[in-house]
Amino acid sequence: MTADHLESRRREIVLAALRCFAREGFHATSVRDVVRESGLSAGAVYSYFPSKAELVAGAVAPILEALTGVLDAVVLDGVRSVGEDRTPTEAVAEVLRRIYPIAVGGEVDYTRVAVTAWAEGLRDPAVRAIAERTYGTVRGRLTDRVTRWRDAGHLPADVDAGALGQVLLSTLLGFVLQHALLGDVDLDRYATAVALLLPRG
Amino acid sequence: MTADHLESRRREIVLAALRCFAREGFHATSVRDVVRESGLSAGAVYSYFPSKAELVAGAVAPILEALTGVLDAVVLDGVRSVGEDRTPTEAVAEVLRRIYPIAVGGEVDYTRVAVTAWAEGLRDPAVRAIAERTYGTVRGRLTDRVTRWRDAGHLPADVDAGALGQVLLSTLLGFVLQHALLGDVDLDRYATAVALLLPRG
Repeated sequence: MTADHLESRRREIVLAALRCFAREGFHATSVRDVVRESGLSAGAVYSYFPSKAELVAGAVAPILEALTGVLDAVVLDGVRSVGEDRTPTEAVAEVLRRIYPIAVGGEVDYTRVAVTAWAEGLRDPAVRAIAERTYGTVRGRLTDRVTRWRDAGHLPADVDAGALGQVLLSTLLGFVLQHALLGDVDLDRYATAVALLLPRG
Repeated sequence: MTADHLESRRREIVLAALRCFAREGFHATSVRDVVRESGLSAGAVYSYFPSKAELVAGAVAPILEALTGVLDAVVLDGVRSVGEDRTPTEAVAEVLRRIYPIAVGGEVDYTRVAVTAWAEGLRDPAVRAIAERTYGTVRGRLTDRVTRWRDAGHLPADVDAGALGQVLLSTLLGFVLQHALLGDVDLDRYATAVALLLPRG
């Protein structure tokens, strides 16, 4: 097979896995279920993903890359114009608005996949490691953003930027959970409310 | 058996269930596992909890009651002295400080139980209903708190109190998740950062 074929087959398997994860959760999904869902042979699936942990990593990689890209575009911009910049919470609101259509607009609702990945991460160190890397990266960028905002004089000099980065991450995680589990959260209203926090000082 | 005996046996079963849930997750725990963990007979366990859903409800009830009590004490206080009152985010920080020792100071880490309950709620309507009731109640009280704060003139009159209530709930949920999954979140630093979000206007 050509590289294009290999890559398109890989994507096919990842999508099958995501459908299983979103429907049944990580824990209840076996590699065998993914084989059945994909319509491919067990050998084909195993040749791409030799274990369930690698399937999980492969399945969450695209959304994590998208999230990192959005963070780079939104949170890291304006480094050279901090004064006119958006506030950290306006930046988080913008991240939400940009990632939302990617997370829930496709074939799979990634907010469901995330919630089931969290639970699996409590038991499976490989999944937990993915979560630590991802949320560590997101939190690091949010913390940098808060640090620059504080150093520009918009927040008291003794503000704990690391802790505030954790709280800002919570506004993203809490949206994911309320969307997946309660289903009654509206993107625009929520993002607007996030942007109200931490007003220009 | 006396009523005291019945109640103490019930608590014994609930604790056994919580240990299983915190260790293995809701999905991977069967009523049979709880029977084994409790050291009681299957008949005894089933007589208190005829189904897994009832076991889940029974297991999460104590922490939900504690949470409601803390909310009543912290969020609803000061109705008659809004001006000198703490800000809504100071109130949320205080809720965190009060619920934390109850949630993680006992035999079971309830933050782990919560994360596994969320995932189970995606698949099991009975668990989802518990989550909807609980978070609906919490969110309602946070929204009331924001409404009073806004009506006292501390926030613009057009602030969406319902959406802000959802965001404040996220700061609680995100703490639970970061505590259970990442394990590197410090209560005092986090609560202090939450309190900063909505300064007195």
